Amino acid sequence: MADWLAALDRRAELRAKAGLTRRLRPRGADDAVVDLAGNDYLGLATHPEVVAAASRALTEYGLGATGSRLVRGSTYAHHALEETLAGWLGTDRALVFSSGYLANLAAIRALVRPRTLLVSDAHNHASLIDGCRLAGAETHVTPHADVDAVAAALAGAPGRPAVVVTESIFSVDGDLAPLARLHAVAREHGALLLVDDAHALGVTGPAGAGAVAAAGLAGAPDVVVTATLSKALGGAGGVVAGPAEYVRHLVETARTFIYDTALPPAVAAGVRAAVDLARAGDELRAELVERAHLAARRLRAAGLDVSTPDAAVVSVTAPGPEAATAWAAACLDRAVAVGCFRPPSTPDSRSRLRLTIGAGVARADFADALEVIVECAP
Amino acid sequence: MADWLAALDRRAELRAKAGLTRRLRPRGADDAVVDLAGNDYLGLATHPEVVAAASRALTEYGLGATGSRLVRGSTYAHHALEETLAGWLGTDRALVFSSGYLANLAAIRALVRPRTLLVSDAHNHASLIDGCRLAGAETHVTPHADVDAVAAALAGAPGRPAVVVTESIFSVDGDLAPLARLHAVAREHGALLLVDDAHALGVTGPAGAGAVAAAGLAGAPDVVVTATLSKALGGAGGVVAGPAEYVRHLVETARTFIYDTALPPAVAAGVRAAVDLARAGDELRAELVERAHLAARRLRAAGLDVSTPDAAVVSVTAPGPEAATAWAAACLDRAVAVGCFRPPSTPDSRSRLRLTIGAGVARADFADALEVIVECAP
Ligand SMILES: Cc1ncc(COP(=O)(O)O)c(C=O)c1O
Ligand SMILES: Cc1ncc(COP(=O)(O)O)c(C=O)c1O
Repeated sequence: MADWLAALDRRAELRAKAGLTRRLRPRGADDAVVDLAGNDYLGLATHPEVVAAASRALTEYGLGATGSRLVRGSTYAHHALEETLAGWLGTDRALVFSSGYLANLAAIRALVRPRTLLVSDAHNHASLIDGCRLAGAETHVTPHADVDAVAAALAGAPGRPAVVVTESIFSVDGDLAPLARLHAVAREHGALLLVDDAHALGVTGPAGAGAVAAAGLAGAPDVVVTATLSKALGGAGGVVAGPAEYVRHLVETARTFIYDTALPPAVAAGVRAAVDLARAGDELRAELVERAHLAARRLRAAGLDVSTPDAAVVSVTAPGPEAATAWAAACLDRAVAVGCFRPPSTPDSRSRLRLTIGAGVARADFADALEVIVECAP
Repeated sequence: MADWLAALDRRAELRAKAGLTRRLRPRGADDAVVDLAGNDYLGLATHPEVVAAASRALTEYGLGATGSRLVRGSTYAHHALEETLAGWLGTDRALVFSSGYLANLAAIRALVRPRTLLVSDAHNHASLIDGCRLAGAETHVTPHADVDAVAAALAGAPGRPAVVVTESIFSVDGDLAPLARLHAVAREHGALLLVDDAHALGVTGPAGAGAVAAAGLAGAPDVVVTATLSKALGGAGGVVAGPAEYVRHLVETARTFIYDTALPPAVAAGVRAAVDLARAGDELRAELVERAHLAARRLRAAGLDVSTPDAAVVSVTAPGPEAATAWAAACLDRAVAVGCFRPPSTPDSRSRLRLTIGAGVARADFADALEVIVECAP
């Protein structure tokens, strides 16, 4: 019986030997680091209007929603947020979940009918992978961003319902999926397209409406969009947006919607204020793009292997997991926080630093931080 | 392609015909109903100290955690909450998740080794069922609260690792699992016991520490406890509590921990204040027990089929799904909110009203509400 703990200890030792230990390091509210690790792209988490809106709803409603959305959890704050999101994303309807993770689990399962084939990009986020698993449908994993492979997978399943599942801006390397081509191929085969727009919402697209909108696919009847409300919108929660019939189906059948406590009303209200700010954030977005390219240029000039950013995520190859950890730790010692991604959090065996560019960082600090990253490079 | 929406419409029509339509009805902050539907058992969601603690953290940290716990999401608020919860629950360590749903998905998967058998109660919550599915282990569903069946399942898998998975207070009928006997049987067979204490935490046990503590199992090395922070604690989020080696394993490997944005710091801070209040809430708990029994007596006296409450959940049989919906709607028309549970949200084909007894409701209103439920009965 007690041997299970010994077995867990042995696995922890193996991870430690491979440089794959993970540790929680709490931060204070005022930690004076330059943040190139968080996902608060537009600096909205601490925006006074966001905090004020959340604060008002907190005072009005109290802390928790006190129940699932269908029982006591639906408040005017949730409904207002859903209308705002649907309007922004250009879809019939939008449904808010307590997290992007649970939104993805629901969104995929609700698209699966008997004999459905799921075609999933090799770089997809854990929540999409778990969504495919939980949906219980056959899943074909295609090489990253490979439209021909997607077409071949669909062609290999004639007459079967199929769903192509992809991120837009991929969370690890920051590259953009070929959405328009994926959609064309999906449509040609009568398949649906599900896009997780987590790292694009608020960052790209017309008025920041994301990569699906940027690709001209907003409101398409064969496209479903999911996203977290925790990145550019600075809050928490998730959303699934699409045709009204599909959203109705989610409300009535999605397990992670029905059997889950609603997002706190204060968070819904804060995120709604964030959407208004994000929509008006074209200048911030231009700044993000500029900074992302600046970062890529500067780090490449130092001889580093750097991804080409399509939004505000820049990935830098590290020689190995220990080197990545040491690199990130050295940066943090110099007050620069960067993301450190090692297997199995990477779609391949390559460890990386991941920089997420935030508009909340002062310009001079940003430039200095790039020098710190270069100086700490292994 | 467009036929998928027509297919969803047809399924919605079938549900409508069977009386199984579900609709979102938003509420305002000040809706003047007597709430016997929400899970805010101790009235802490709107407690001034909870709101004040959340408010302070909101001002300090901003709205969102801006990243996963291992990247930028861990704040002092999260760590303080985890220490408080571990102390309260009497476990080595506690780990906070963004929801109870995601906590359950992680907790089960982290207990599964090759050849593990999961033994799951037939009345278990959707998140536990999905947790078993996602863990990918063989799952044996035993009849509800049937210790002999659990023993037989374990005896039928000699030499295999096994985990017994149960709720404590079951969410639909409010009955308590035979935890001490389940634990004895599990231990006899070298199996682990996972208990979802969602509806017991804050409501039963010494200083409200839940049903696991009440059964004398707090801190047992072969027991893992999960719970949502959204019911008696009035907030949102989830927790997994258990041995240090196990929690470390979760931190380093649990997908719904690693790849999910942390709970907002303000929510963590508010819930921590709620724990302090819940611990000191013996009088409120006594009141809840009294009210639950009063409700059962009154409704039975009216000839209704009522569960025997072991905590603060009372379930009342309805003749069918349409009748349940009509009954709940009639109550709501008279300003009494009750839960309405129909298949597939019930573990059997029986539709029910579910009353969750809140200490926040005024005594006289509570008594009146019972009369309304009786008068509206089909
Ligand atoms: C691409 C992607 N999808 C989904 C999620 C999950 O969203 P959440 O953190 O709200 O659960 C994330 C990040 O957390 C993500 O990067
Ligand atoms: C028994 C049980 N487990 C888990 C959950 C899920 O917790 P959460 O709402 O925090 O996701 C709930 C209720 O929502 C529940 O009743």
